[in-house]
Amino acid sequence: MKSNRKTFGIIIIGNEILSGKTLDTNSHLICTELHNIGLVCKEIVTIPDIEKIISEKVNLFRQKFDFVFTTGGIGPTHDDKTSNAIAIAFGDLLTLNKEAKKRLEKHYSDDLLTNARLKMAYVPSRAKLIDNPVSIAPGFFIENVFVFPGVPKILEVMFKDILKKFKKNKKKFIKKIITTTLSEGIIGEYLADVQKKYSDLEIGSYPYFKKNTFGVSLVIIGETSKRVKEVCDLLISYLEKNNGNPRLF
Amino acid sequence: MKSNRKTFGIIIIGNEILSGKTLDTNSHLICTELHNIGLVCKEIVTIPDIEKIISEKVNLFRQKFDFVFTTGGIGPTHDDKTSNAIAIAFGDLLTLNKEAKKRLEKHYSDDLLTNARLKMAYVPSRAKLIDNPVSIAPGFFIENVFVFPGVPKILEVMFKDILKKFKKNKKKFIKKIITTTLSEGIIGEYLADVQKKYSDLEIGSYPYFKKNTFGVSLVIIGETSKRVKEVCDLLISYLEKNNGNPRLF
Repeated sequence: MKSNRKTFGIIIIGNEILSGKTLDTNSHLICTELHNIGLVCKEIVTIPDIEKIISEKVNLFRQKFDFVFTTGGIGPTHDDKTSNAIAIAFGDLLTLNKEAKKRLEKHYSDDLLTNARLKMAYVPSRAKLIDNPVSIAPGFFIENVFVFPGVPKILEVMFKDILKKFKKNKKKFIKKIITTTLSEGIIGEYLADVQKKYSDLEIGSYPYFKKNTFGVSLVIIGETSKRVKEVCDLLISYLEKNNGNPRLF
Repeated sequence: MKSNRKTFGIIIIGNEILSGKTLDTNSHLICTELHNIGLVCKEIVTIPDIEKIISEKVNLFRQKFDFVFTTGGIGPTHDDKTSNAIAIAFGDLLTLNKEAKKRLEKHYSDDLLTNARLKMAYVPSRAKLIDNPVSIAPGFFIENVFVFPGVPKILEVMFKDILKKFKKNKKKFIKKIITTTLSEGIIGEYLADVQKKYSDLEIGSYPYFKKNTFGVSLVIIGETSKRVKEVCDLLISYLEKNNGNPRLF
């Protein structure tokens, strides 16, 4: 699909995902929310807690995509390497952020603000903080890279706050769904023809199974209602002719 | 962690994951099962249904890792591009696999074996089939690259069959878990010291919240019981001294 839509990539950082200990749901949240306002996710990658791997991937992604989101690796322990990796990627240094320190001091009494916790107040010198109303230790962003913690409940609150900024520059796009009781094997060739003719649109085809029925959801995405409607009309007329019981959503 | 353990990477193919329509759980299944028999996942990547992107990523991964698993994109529609992308990656050609065709002919009556469905019998000429007892259309492998469909219920059956081959060459490793009621912020510095001293082991630290309690799970992984026991003894003694109520699993 040719498009002017802004792109993004997601970097999930954490051995716990790679070992199967934890199911990553953060990328799904970020993709869903940004897709809804017209951004396109080009790549999601999960990598281990290794500084060099993180900084190389951040440098690759920030050049390839308009925005980059990272999750994980900004906590207080030895396996939290993201902040320093981001500093390295930008040729920057970790420095004690006074505002972050102040917030942590307010949250933890003196004896609980350990060196390990204070580590969370060190961010790259050029970074700007992202508020964390749940566990206080902030995320941050630097240029087009947004750095979030990995705990889903905390990420969710912080991400939805950042999302407001993106919504301001929202680019509209049109999405329609057609369901049919015909299977992909039956309609596949026709769909391929339509996709070829309408290369400016994205036509996705997803089989579904629920209760005792099955069928296919066709998802049509484009930048103008006119083009999307043209394709929907074509598909519905084809499906009706072939007893495919099309329904438009 | 320095290791002789075999490595693998996973390539998840499909716009439906990148748009947030579908939550990927396939990589979690593969990681869990292979971690349990001692393999190490180095990278998971999710990419769109674009032939060039798929073949480039397959070529990168198959050189970097011992094994590569792909999911998605081998169905009957125009957005299923994986098989051809794999052929391109290996400098091979898609050819009609007689055995795959025979299975599809048996499964579908003549009028239902459409051209779109027959597309699923085309695999790279050097590929070997992976049986699909659910929906018949096979997966395949070529050298160290294993190609699976994206529908989780089908992938699960097919993957567990392949898993048997890996279990035969299983390399043992030792894993222990210690839980404590002390938080990461308290034990972080000590943990970092221990990790530095025991660089041949992997010490992971994962906060948990359940019901009204919280704490940390420490996961210690190594290749000999002796080394893992040494670290466990150290950590337990430290946690006991600091009223961290350690429990070993």
